Parts: sequence; structure tokens; C-alpha cells
Amino acid sequence: MKIIDLRSDTVTQPTTVMRRAMFQAAVGDDGYGEDPTVKALEELAAQMTGKEAGLFVTSGTQGNQIAAMVHTKKCDEIICEATSHIFGSETGGIGALAGAQPYPVIGINGKLSPELIEPAIRRKKMNAPCTSLITIENTHAQAGGTFYTPIELAAIRELANQHSLPIHIDGARIFNAAIAQDVTVAELAQYADSMQLCLSKGLCAPVGSVLVGTGAFIQQARRYRRLLGGGMRKAGIIAAAGIVALKTMVNRLNEDHLHARMLGEAIASTNLNLAITNVKTNIVIFDISPLKIEAAEYVKKLALYKIKALAFGRHKIRMVTHNDISRSDIDYTINSLYKLTNDFQQDKF
Amino acid sequence: MKIIDLRSDTVTQPTTVMRRAMFQAAVGDDGYGEDPTVKALEELAAQMTGKEAGLFVTSGTQGNQIAAMVHTKKCDEIICEATSHIFGSETGGIGALAGAQPYPVIGINGKLSPELIEPAIRRKKMNAPCTSLITIENTHAQAGGTFYTPIELAAIRELANQHSLPIHIDGARIFNAAIAQDVTVAELAQYADSMQLCLSKGLCAPVGSVLVGTGAFIQQARRYRRLLGGGMRKAGIIAAAGIVALKTMVNRLNEDHLHARMLGEAIASTNLNLAITNVKTNIVIFDISPLKIEAAEYVKKLALYKIKALAFGRHKIRMVTHNDISRSDIDYTINSLYKLTNDFQQDKF
Amino acid sequence: MKIIDLRSDTVTQPTTVMRRAMFQAAVGDDGYGEDPTVKALEELAAQMTGKEAGLFVTSGTQGNQIAAMVHTKKCDEIICEATSHIFGSETGGIGALAGAQPYPVIGINGKLSPELIEPAIRRKKMNAPCTSLITIENTHAQAGGTFYTPIELAAIRELANQHSLPIHIDGARIFNAAIAQDVTVAELAQYADSMQLCLSKGLCAPVGSVLVGTGAFIQQARRYRRLLGGGMRKAGIIAAAGIVALKTMVNRLNEDHLHARMLGEAIASTNLNLAITNVKTNIVIFDISPLKIEAAEYVKKLALYKIKALAFGRHKIRMVTHNDISRSDIDYTINSLYKLTNDFQQDKF
Amino acid sequence: MKIIDLRSDTVTQPTTVMRRAMFQAAVGDDGYGEDPTVKALEELAAQMTGKEAGLFVTSGTQGNQIAAMVHTKKCDEIICEATSHIFGSETGGIGALAGAQPYPVIGINGKLSPELIEPAIRRKKMNAPCTSLITIENTHAQAGGTFYTPIELAAIRELANQHSLPIHIDGARIFNAAIAQDVTVAELAQYADSMQLCLSKGLCAPVGSVLVGTGAFIQQARRYRRLLGGGMRKAGIIAAAGIVALKTMVNRLNEDHLHARMLGEAIASTNLNLAITNVKTNIVIFDISPLKIEAAEYVKKLALYKIKALAFGRHKIRMVTHNDISRSDIDYTINSLYKLTNDFQQDKF
Repeated sequence: MKIIDLRSDTVTQPTTVMRRAMFQAAVGDDGYGEDPTVKALEELAAQMTGKEAGLFVTSGTQGNQIAAMVHTKKCDEIICEATSHIFGSETGGIGALAGAQPYPVIGINGKLSPELIEPAIRRKKMNAPCTSLITIENTHAQAGGTFYTPIELAAIRELANQHSLPIHIDGARIFNAAIAQDVTVAELAQYADSMQLCLSKGLCAPVGSVLVGTGAFIQQARRYRRLLGGGMRKAGIIAAAGIVALKTMVNRLNEDHLHARMLGEAIASTNLNLAITNVKTNIVIFDISPLKIEAAEYVKKLALYKIKALAFGRHKIRMVTHNDISRSDIDYTINSLYKLTNDFQQDKF
Repeated sequence: MKIIDLRSDTVTQPTTVMRRAMFQAAVGDDGYGEDPTVKALEELAAQMTGKEAGLFVTSGTQGNQIAAMVHTKKCDEIICEATSHIFGSETGGIGALAGAQPYPVIGINGKLSPELIEPAIRRKKMNAPCTSLITIENTHAQAGGTFYTPIELAAIRELANQHSLPIHIDGARIFNAAIAQDVTVAELAQYADSMQLCLSKGLCAPVGSVLVGTGAFIQQARRYRRLLGGGMRKAGIIAAAGIVALKTMVNRLNEDHLHARMLGEAIASTNLNLAITNVKTNIVIFDISPLKIEAAEYVKKLALYKIKALAFGRHKIRMVTHNDISRSDIDYTINSLYKLTNDFQQDKF
Repeated sequence: MKIIDLRSDTVTQPTTVMRRAMFQAAVGDDGYGEDPTVKALEELAAQMTGKEAGLFVTSGTQGNQIAAMVHTKKCDEIICEATSHIFGSETGGIGALAGAQPYPVIGINGKLSPELIEPAIRRKKMNAPCTSLITIENTHAQAGGTFYTPIELAAIRELANQHSLPIHIDGARIFNAAIAQDVTVAELAQYADSMQLCLSKGLCAPVGSVLVGTGAFIQQARRYRRLLGGGMRKAGIIAAAGIVALKTMVNRLNEDHLHARMLGEAIASTNLNLAITNVKTNIVIFDISPLKIEAAEYVKKLALYKIKALAFGRHKIRMVTHNDISRSDIDYTINSLYKLTNDFQQDKF
Repeated sequence: MKIIDLRSDTVTQPTTVMRRAMFQAAVGDDGYGEDPTVKALEELAAQMTGKEAGLFVTSGTQGNQIAAMVHTKKCDEIICEATSHIFGSETGGIGALAGAQPYPVIGINGKLSPELIEPAIRRKKMNAPCTSLITIENTHAQAGGTFYTPIELAAIRELANQHSLPIHIDGARIFNAAIAQDVTVAELAQYADSMQLCLSKGLCAPVGSVLVGTGAFIQQARRYRRLLGGGMRKAGIIAAAGIVALKTMVNRLNEDHLHARMLGEAIASTNLNLAITNVKTNIVIFDISPLKIEAAEYVKKLALYKIKALAFGRHKIRMVTHNDISRSDIDYTINSLYKLTNDFQQDKF
């Protein structure tokens, strides 16, 4: 029986179209700048986001960290949200690589605003670190896939301009943010100086992200990519799947969002009083505290139904919908959740 | 006319006794470990704090940063209070020197507690930074000189032990914390693996701090001091003043605390509704928002009375009492504050 | 007409067998440790080199830098050869990532020996950096593909043991070193604590290297790979080509070596007095100073014959043989070199 | 009986004039830029060296490392001499603090020249570190106090200009270099963008160095000094001795040089075939290999005569003359060396 893996959209399998594109990809040594497929991907990503240039990197973490390195120098500080990926899930790269300091600000539903950011800005004081970058995660994973609207981004941009600060968007799921609001990615990216977008999450490519920005930014980023060992030789193989991802996999994210909402509503409709985050994109997070069991325990019980979910701290469960989850998988999952609910209500465990 | 400088206790002048001790100090090349006065200071500080060994450093910042370097390695994280000196006033050294990341936690009156610290601990996850140090600032300057009690420290120690985490105390004003509670410094230091204490603030020595800890810790710290260029040659000159500071200047801090309370009560007694922090040691911070002027403006008006204070952000004023502020200076200052209050009430400005 | 690209063995195209293996590769999220093909590659590399564990990394640079990070800490020093890749071609990563210092030692034909290494070892001095790693490049690219013999490596190992120092081998072309001496890679790797081997050079895989060492070493390396953003999602796609490379492409390196010797002899046989390095593996470097032209100029003239070579500094030319260079390509190249020689002798340019 | 300490000129005692100047020094909080004596020292040093501005630092190491931090950024490289202080005696700070890489070049008698430097310059290559600084040590301690002439420095300056590279002079003993050639320090400093000069070696001040350069350079340097914890409070105490040093102790270095030459000639005149460096300033290094004993052993035998010298590696001895070594001390030392020679010749040991 099929296992329904809802832990993350990073578990997506590359599609057959992607595998074929990889099989046929024209490749060259990207170290000499001679891989046509990598170049095509970088240009496509730049064009879709309205930026001058792109750089293929091996992961979203690498894209974020390279951006941090380009935008900052020693003794600088980076404003980020307190539950953001760059602060909590990149092994402390802001300190270890950029030699800068994160200034984590607690957002509202994971989102920052000018009012929250401004008090954290420190500039031109002898003793304080110097703010040199604002980072925005859109959608914000830990907050359940919430997104920033163009209006919200414009407001942060205005503040950033007042302080001559660049903005970097961690766009690991920027396509989810765009599709959910029915805007283009470029409309969201316009408020940022740099952005990284992931090909390997909802878009299903096996590997990679693209960092976009000005030509000068990407030139410096290319050097830091080399520093991190992110320069690959005949990377056109995997870039080929990235092109398929950008060209054909974006619109179908709508389906993932619908599935996530269905899951969310089903969980809300049980009378277990499980607080769930407002489902905005493809992520559902719900709090199982009323069940009086640990998240790890709940995950184990779900596994009996061949469903994989993620324990998110001690009391929360995360489910993420994606290309390998069909409507019938969702129906089955909802059914299973109801059964599990019954079991809990009847104190079966 | 004398200028009454209440900006900080760092403006204290070395006493005549100190100047004489420096004049007569026996010195040698501390690079060869041959400065007898430096050694005596390091031993004295170690003994007073109940630690195995001490290291003379050029500043509190250097002491804190060396401690951070010894306790952490790449990809580690340091828990600190969000308004602490190590996070906000050391030019981002945690990232730039230790290559680690600060995790600033918002304290209550600048103070951390096990309940606040525990959710910030991250250990042994592949992607997260790894917590490797808890730092405590005692007294806490930005919070108005609040102190941790032995009981509060013991609770944090217990949590730290559960997670095998070391504690470093930024004891820039640890003697103020001790005197205010009538306990020895050793009683406070016992809960820390390492601590730095400043000689050049309330204790009036011209230069320097001492970092204390285990013998092994100090051995590694000595190497990092060299890295930072903190190794000095015939440092016995200034160490001599430090010995005088530790031996003779501690008890008189009581006087500074009394003076600060007097200032605080006077400010509270005006009917200007100025919110002042609970004065615990030698620091008074009050909010002048009701006066509808900026702090920088208020500081200028005070200067007309030959009184210097510090604008603390845009709406707060900080005053710090110290050895060069006599009872009559306090009386004069209170008088001047009353006059200034009158001026504001009569809208003179 | 076909272009004969002798600039490097990094320009090799993946073979059809590799493309097929990639098309069919079973993949999973390596972030969760669930990519079976990546695991198979890591195990295969570990087994072939006689090490406990392996880690798939995106480049040789990443493998070397991660090794440097694991073996060293702040204030440490790494002994390397003065023309080695880790010193000269990794954008200064030893300083920027490991926070350590390289100690470049001038080798003999690019090779280090105990006699050359020992004077560079610095240990346990307060003021000096502390040697914590010896790196060996085998084969050594800048020195024309020279290799270390097991006896030479054993001698360095003995010295390293005396000083309790680990050895890391940059094995970007370790298979060339092995094949040229008719020994196994494990016979060479046994003298090292860690080694990285490249899949994307002579072995023709499109992307990647494997870092091998003890289980504990690889565990720490995995975390630093994450730091560098080298953690990839469904990396099994490219790992599949790596498995083909290790299983089927090693022995054919003999052919590249034969081709390189043929090239070298042809160049030596012209009466232009071009000093060429002793051709040991697949690299030929020759000095065109007697021709009184710059290397860049010579490269342009070669291009007229549809041959690409690398200007190696101002007076040297590098040619590297590989899988995409056939015997007839070599014959054609030799012929072209003779014609070019004639032109120079008749002063045609 | 007096011990004659020839290990280094860092063992000099501050003079009585210095002690008096320190006793009387006007001081303020240098953290607020209010220490008049520190300012006076910084201005004096800037003026004597012909630079715009100066910064009082706690050690020569700190001055050199701050300069390295200002002149470089991540992935940069610093050219230095292979036996220079910044490469070998500053605990690897180039990597640990600046995040840059040293490129040590083997000098002739410890001195670099355009011919030696040029091949080490690497600029604007994607994969190589980028040279961003040339450092010169004048006089060069490890090479026995050799100095660079203005003509030699001008030649290096010209090369640096061609490559738009800044030059930093480690002028720990720049006054010895100036006095030995009868030129002003400014004549030597004019070829450098930045220089640090030590007050605590031959000039006898107890603590400190001054870093000089342009106003903009010093502004950035001041911030990095803060980072390193080198910002001191009432540093005027020790700065006062520095002023005495600069004003009154420079010319007397001639005496130290004469003493060193006397020592050198005496050692050369023994028939023990001890190779001694050409004594140019206040340092004498001689090779005791013909005596068939280790340097540490020789140092012990000298100690029997109450003479301290430094074992310099396994076969060399270093003696440094300074203010606390009188003519009669030199006579006594020469006499003792002769006696020791006799002992060796008669195989007494």
C-alpha cells in the first residue's frame, strides 16, 4: 500500500518529464561558464522574477547564506523573523559564514512589519552591530505557510529605503505565495534586492535553488558560491529539471493549496479543539495538546495508517501537501484522521 | 564650576591611592608571564570570586568575547538577553569573533529565567544551530541595574545542568549586584562557569577587567586574548590600580546605590508622571515622554545646569552614580531637576 | 568539425550509461537521509577507499573545505603545498570558512616530504598558530599530475603520527594516482584520516565528490555540509552517475595516461626546447618561453586548429587527456602541434 | 647581582620619567573620546609618521590585526614574509579574525622585494583568493633586525601601486629602522598606507602601540578595536608613558645598536665559527651548531652567568639590546661569552 508522505514538500519525486529532460540535457563545465542548461535556467529564473541575473545554487540554505554574505560584512547585523529558516534551520550560518549577527524579531503569524522591524534597526553606533540586511521568508514555513502581500512588502520596502537597507527574500516557497494571491512572482520579488527560490520543494525538481538579484550582486554571489563549494561541473543535468519545474509546475500548486485547506477544515471540524493555523498555502499545522499525548506519539499512530506527518515541537503536527499527494490521498487521510479522532474520543489508546 | 557627570560610572577618575600604586608597581613582561602585579591581580580576582584562575583583559567586552570564543565553536548559539551588552554593545562579536549566533531572549526587567531560557535551547539537531552557552548580565545595565539573586541564579544553573550547558556571567557590575544584596561576589559567581568583572566602572580603576574560571578555561582564554591583541607587556602598571580597586573600592558602592535611590525618589516625586525603573543599584533610568521632548533635548537642558546625563534611546534618560559624585552633587542635581520640572510645568521652553 | 578540448578533464561529458542510470535512479529526500542512491554511492566510495563512511558533496572544493573545518579550529594552521588546490584555487576558504591559516610549503615537483613538512609544524606555542592538519594533493594538478607513492605517503604518515597530526588527501584525481601505479585507491587512502575523491573529472560523472573518513568524522562533516548549503534533496539523480563512475570508469584512465605520454613525447621531440613536466598521469604542462610569445597567444593559435588548451600562467600550456579524447584526437593534436612548430620555426607569425 | 636580560627589548622597564608622567596624566573616558592624553599620543604619533590619524592599541599584534581587518575582506589574501610576526606569532589572526589567508613569501634576510612579491599577487580570478594587502615588517625581528631602506620601500610601493594594493608596515621596531639609517620615521612611513609602531619595546613604555593611517582608515580601525575589546576606558595613564617614549626615547636607540654591534663582533671574533646575522639594529642572532649542543642548553649555561638570552629554534640564540642594558653590562656579557667559549673549547661541558 502506498505511503502518504505529508512531512514536507521536499519529499516530492521528480516527474517523468523532468527525468527525460535530465536525460537529454545539454551540459558543459559550469566552472568555465559553459553549461547551456544552467545558463538557461538562470536566465529563466531572472526573467520570471524580474531581476537582472540568476545563480543556480545547490540548496535554499546556500542561496540564503550567499545572500547574507554579499549583503553584510563583519560586525553587521541581519534582521530576521524569530522562527525563520535562516535563523533557526541553517546551522547558524549567519555567524559562521557571514561573520554577522542575526537579530531575530518575533513576528505576528511569522510575519514582520515596519512597526516590528524599525526598533531593531541599529546604524552607525560605535559599539552596536550595524544593521545591513532585512530578510523576509515568503511563505513562512514555521508559521504555517503564511504569505506576505504586495502591500505588506511595499511597506517594509519603504522602511528599508528610509534606512538604505537591502531586503533579501527567502523564497523557498515564493511560488506558493504568488499562486495563493494570484499574482506573479515578479510582483512579490520587486520589493527585494535579492531572492532565492527553491526548485526542489513544491515544484518537484530533484535538487537546487536559484538566487536572483542585480548583475553585480550575482557576480559577487558567484564567488561566494565557489567559496562554499557550490560550484558544480556539468550541473545542466539537474538544471534541466529546474527548467521544467519553472515552466510547468507552478500553476498546479493551486491544487496543493486546495488539498491543504481540505485537510485543515477536516481537522477543525473534529470536536477535539485542535487549534490549527489559518491554512493559506500548502502547509497545515495543528496543535494536539488537548489529546494529552506528545507529537511524536501522534506521528506514530498516524504511521499505522501509512501516513507520515512531522512532529513540530512537542505538541504540534505539520502536514504539507504536494505533487505526490492526490485528491484520493487527501480523502483517505481525512478519513484516517477521523478514525484516529474516534479512537482518542473513545480513549482507545 | 564642577561638571556633574552622571552619564556612566565609566567616567570615574582613578583615585590618588591608585595613582600611587601605579607609580610604584613592580612590572615585568607579561608576555613571558613575568609581571608580578598582573599575577597578583589575577590571583586576587580568582580568590574573591571563588574561581581557580583569572586573566587580566583590557575591557569587559574583551572578557565577554573571549569567554564566548572558549565556550563555543562554529555553528553554536549563545543565549543572551535581548537588551544585553554582549548582544547589543559589542559590535556583533559573537558572530565576528566566535563565529557563533546570539539567540536574544526578551527578559523581564532585563532578567532571564529558566522558563524564558528553556524554549530557546536547541541541541543536536542537524539543521539548527547548537546552543552552547547561556550568558547572564548581572547587574543588567540596559534594564536599569537590576540584579539576579542567588536563588534566581541557582534556578538557571539547574536548567543549564540539565542540558549540560555552561553559564557565563557578564559581571561588568557584579560588585554592585553583590553589595546591593549584601552577599559576596563568590556567592553570585558560584553559579557560573566563567565570569568577567570590570575594574574600571564603579571601582574606579582606569583600565581593565578580569576574566575568571577554571584553570583549563583560563589557559584557552589566554590564547584567545593573544589572538585579540589583548596581551600587554608591562601591564602591572594598570593592574596595580585594579588591586586597589578590588581591595578598597567595593564597599563604598553602597554610597552610590544610596545616591541613585535619592535621585530616583526625587524624580518620582515630581508630578510629571515620569516612569522610572525600580532603582536597585547605581543606575537610574526615567522616561520623559510626558514632557513631549526628545531625550537629546532634555540632556541639553540639563547641561545648562552643568549636569551630564545620557539620552537612552529617544525618550529615556540615564543617570549613573559613582565615586566622583558626592552627596552634595546629588543634592544639587535633585535641586536642578526640580527647577527643570518647574520650567517644564510653566512651559518655559 | 569536432573541437578537441584539452583544457581539463572537468569538461568530460557524462556517458550514455550514466544518463540512463540517472534517468532510472531511485531517489528520496537526502535531508531526511532517505535517498537510497546517495547512500549506495557513499557506501561504495567508503568501501573502495577502505574508510568507515562517506559523504556526497557537490564539489572537490566543498570536500576539502569541510575536511579543513572538521580537522581544525580557530587559531589552527594547515600545512599544504604552495601550489596546491586548497591553497590557491579555493578562494581562500581555509581562512574564510575554517578560520584557520594555511602554511604553504614549497614542494619538489609539487610534492611534500617529511623533511619539507617538519620545519613547518608549530605546536603548543602561545603566540604561533597551531598546526592541526597536513594536506596532500594526489595527484598534484599544478605540478603536472605527479603522484605520491605509498612509500612516500607512509613516510609522511609516520611524521604526522609523531606529532599527532591528521592527514587529509585532496584526491580530486586519486584514481589517476592509483591507476598510474597499479595500486588500489585504498592502498593510497590508508595513510590519510580523510580524503575527498572527485567523480566529475576523469571519471566523467556530471557533478560531485565523495568525502570519506571515520564515522565520527563524517557525522561532523555532514553538519558542515549543511552549513555550506551542500545538503541536497533528491541528490540520487547525480549520485547514480557517480556509482557508474566508480564501478566502470576507473580502469580506462590508463588510456588517458597513455595519451598524455604520447602528447608529451611529441612535444619533447620537437626541436623547440620546450621544457615539459615529466608526464606521470593525464596532465601535460610545457613551457613555451623559447617561442617568445605569451601563453594566451599560443592558445589562440591552437584554437585555429580547433584545439583548446589552457594558458597556465604566462609561459606555460596545460593539456589534459580524458574520456572524450580518442586516439585519433591525439594523433590529430600531435600533428597540429608539429605544424604549429613549423610555423614558429619559419617565423610565420 | 643584576640579571642581564637580553631575551627581548620587551622586558624594558618604564623609566622614572614615564612613571611620573603616568602618575600625573590627565585622563577621561576614551569610550566617549574624552581622554586628552590618549588623544595627544594619537596626534603625536600621526604627526611623527606623517599620517592623518592615529589609534592607540594595546599591542603590536592588535595593531597589525586591525589593519588586516580593515584592508581585507572574506576570500582575500595578505602577502607577508614567511618568518614575519603577523604570519607566525599572532596565533593565526589573519584567518581567525580577518577571515583572509596569508600568502607567506620567503624573503632574503627576511626582506621582500618587488621580484619576490609580484609572483604571489593574485587578482580577480574566480577561484583564487584575491590579494588585498602587502605587509612589510621593518625592522624584521626573525631575520635579526634587518631593515628596509627608503629606496627598497619605494620599489615595493611602485609595485603595489601598479596592482592598486595597500601596504601595511608592521613597525614594531620602526624607530630602530629609522635611527639605524638616520632618517625620520615619516620617511619610512610614507610608503605605507598604514603602520603600527610599538611603544613598549625599545622605547620602554609599559604598554601599547599606535596604528596610523588616513582618517577614514582609523575610523574603521576604531570600530574593529572595539570589536577586539581593545577599547580602554581611562587609557591616558599608559598613553602618558607613550608620549614620553615618542618624545624622549627615540634617539637613544643608537646606543642599543652600538651595543648590539659590539656583541656581534665579539661573538664573531671567537674561533667557534658561529654564524651570526649581520647586526643592523639591536638584535643579534647566532648559530651555535658548531658547539654540538641545543640552544636550550646554551641558554642554561648563560644563565649561570646571570645572563638571559632566547633559544631561537634549536640551534640559534637571540640577544636583544635595550635601555636596561648598559655599556658595562655589554662588557660583562662579552667577557662571559669568551669564558663560555673557553669552556667549550676545553670541552669542559
